[in-house]
Amino acid sequence: MPRASVVGAGMTKFGVHDSTLSELFAEAALSAFDDAGVGPDDVDALYFGNAMGGQTENDTHLAPKAASRIGLAGVPCQRFEDACATSANAFKNAVHAVEAGVHDTVLVGGSERCTPVTGLGTAEMTRIFASASDRHYEQPTGLTFPGVFALLTKRHMHEYGTTEEQLAHVAVKNHANGEHNPIAHFGKQTTVEEVLEGPVVADPFRLMDCCPFSDGASAVLVTSTDRADSFDDPVDVSGVGHATDVVPLGAKPVPHATEAARKAAAQAYEQAGASADEMDFAEVHDCFTGAEIMASEAIGFFEDGEGGPAAEAGRSSLDGDRPINPSGGLKAKGHPIGATGTGQIVELTEQLRGGAKERQIDGATKGLAHNLGGDAATTVVTVMEVRE
Amino acid sequence: MPRASVVGAGMTKFGVHDSTLSELFAEAALSAFDDAGVGPDDVDALYFGNAMGGQTENDTHLAPKAASRIGLAGVPCQRFEDACATSANAFKNAVHAVEAGVHDTVLVGGSERCTPVTGLGTAEMTRIFASASDRHYEQPTGLTFPGVFALLTKRHMHEYGTTEEQLAHVAVKNHANGEHNPIAHFGKQTTVEEVLEGPVVADPFRLMDCCPFSDGASAVLVTSTDRADSFDDPVDVSGVGHATDVVPLGAKPVPHATEAARKAAAQAYEQAGASADEMDFAEVHDCFTGAEIMASEAIGFFEDGEGGPAAEAGRSSLDGDRPINPSGGLKAKGHPIGATGTGQIVELTEQLRGGAKERQIDGATKGLAHNLGGDAATTVVTVMEVRE
Repeated sequence: MPRASVVGAGMTKFGVHDSTLSELFAEAALSAFDDAGVGPDDVDALYFGNAMGGQTENDTHLAPKAASRIGLAGVPCQRFEDACATSANAFKNAVHAVEAGVHDTVLVGGSERCTPVTGLGTAEMTRIFASASDRHYEQPTGLTFPGVFALLTKRHMHEYGTTEEQLAHVAVKNHANGEHNPIAHFGKQTTVEEVLEGPVVADPFRLMDCCPFSDGASAVLVTSTDRADSFDDPVDVSGVGHATDVVPLGAKPVPHATEAARKAAAQAYEQAGASADEMDFAEVHDCFTGAEIMASEAIGFFEDGEGGPAAEAGRSSLDGDRPINPSGGLKAKGHPIGATGTGQIVELTEQLRGGAKERQIDGATKGLAHNLGGDAATTVVTVMEVRE
Repeated sequence: MPRASVVGAGMTKFGVHDSTLSELFAEAALSAFDDAGVGPDDVDALYFGNAMGGQTENDTHLAPKAASRIGLAGVPCQRFEDACATSANAFKNAVHAVEAGVHDTVLVGGSERCTPVTGLGTAEMTRIFASASDRHYEQPTGLTFPGVFALLTKRHMHEYGTTEEQLAHVAVKNHANGEHNPIAHFGKQTTVEEVLEGPVVADPFRLMDCCPFSDGASAVLVTSTDRADSFDDPVDVSGVGHATDVVPLGAKPVPHATEAARKAAAQAYEQAGASADEMDFAEVHDCFTGAEIMASEAIGFFEDGEGGPAAEAGRSSLDGDRPINPSGGLKAKGHPIGATGTGQIVELTEQLRGGAKERQIDGATKGLAHNLGGDAATTVVTVMEVRE
């Protein structure tokens, strides 16, 4: 029995946007309204995600501001912030709310601006992102997120022999997929050689192992499975798992296992009554190439240690047996932090409706989204499926 | 039928704290655990409120960080931000969650630092607070929150003849109450004359019409009414209303009516099956004296236009017929933004348990909390009552 349904989905192009966070969200939200064939009067609440608007442009209390821009003023609104897992967590809370009958139909989404349109350069943005790392032990040492994921990935390489070439294959695949995604920040193709020739950002990551800073917004309409019957093309949410892990990295017994992802995936699969093997594809949180490999193991697509060889062998490509990030992922589609989680839900919705065109996974009936925040400390895993 | 119960409550002193946001929250949370006689193993989720940690000290993703400090790592956590209504909204979401059976027992609270311990001065903090005002029409004009509430209050004075003396009576009363509250930031008594002689901050507000910048944390444990039976001294949550209003101020048809507060109060009373007349006291969001007067009308304690005269006549004093802010309110207790909402719930819990000592409202069986955020655009109203 599914828990809820997505009946509308919309997003902006991910890239560079010179409009406010509320305006940007409005574009995605109105697109989701159009997709569902509804207006603001049909929506009972807004669950809004934004991670860093206060820091980047002194813009907070964004939920009622965003609601005001789309004719929703008055409804209960809340802003969620859980680092890069911000809007996936908003989505989870919305699924709970419609399942419990707290609200009938909830608009969920996120909006973020990370490019220099905010007036901030790359160094300052990197410092702002680092606000999600540990206050006592990590921030004072100057550890930023390329470093956090480099440490996790180095440990994975040490344990399993994962190679830089295997990491590069993730980048190549995701850029190839992104070329088929009209909303992707970077569609251009790359090669393993090109990736391996790039400048080192944080060993073992080179430039092309890292996702870009992006602006963008995404939005979905979540309603109860019963109400979904009256919509044209609903897609069901059959499981949503959510777990956290201890912060900082150094306190985790097996850091590269990304334990929260394993717990969240187990919850989602159990709720969905399905196994990893039944998933036709996954969108995972590839903020760095190494993160995709660890995620592909945590969600059970590959055995521990097999994520690297699988990427190299093309198993996670569009035409592989376990496709990952058909959208291009954070790596090529882009990563507007608070918009990323529901951006994955938009991709799941499009794939499960069979409308993803050149990047369509043939006959996909079940898909999974994995959205991770901070020091791999918050993870939300969602399983969606074609309505029976 | 109550919706949920509060079975533990704790808070730090409000004032100046030189510890991190997570450490500060831990003090309040462990105090709530002690109060309830539970440990972290008895808690299923953390609903965490913080408004400005990213802006003030580059500290975000605080929910799992706070959880890690108190032995809760692993449970689902989320951070809420809704300006000054941050932790009341977290509380509302937690009540929904335990009522719906999503979680059994939820730790809800907030933590904030606003004093110069963050390294920021008053002018910079005022700019940061202004992040909650409208991005398009208010921030560019330099409108900050003393100005926002001054505009609302000026309109109230124009409509009803509310006077500066009446505003001063609110400050005098709340400081008198605060003197009886050991956790209050400012307990010292003041007089109407002293208030009226203070320097003007934003006409009609003088210095003593404005609440202070405070550091502090608060936490409560929310569980289902059934589970509450096994605790020593539960207090029931009979209603929680939540509404928003259009942003900016200039778009509101009747700004001084604080429409969201009226809607939220009506929802809370309806859920509680009770009227304003049945409330023995209220904690309201007196960020400025004028805000208390508008709130006292919005929650139905006084007719529109009677809030000022009622304050002057002592009706809202501890020994008046409609006591408001026995804790001292934001004005004297202090206003650590993200901790204020659940701080009010702590006061309701203490009053309804009969444990508020010198500031106890005799025989109180029902109380109300009113927590407002931004341009009076988010309001959460909670009704709690003694367990039958």
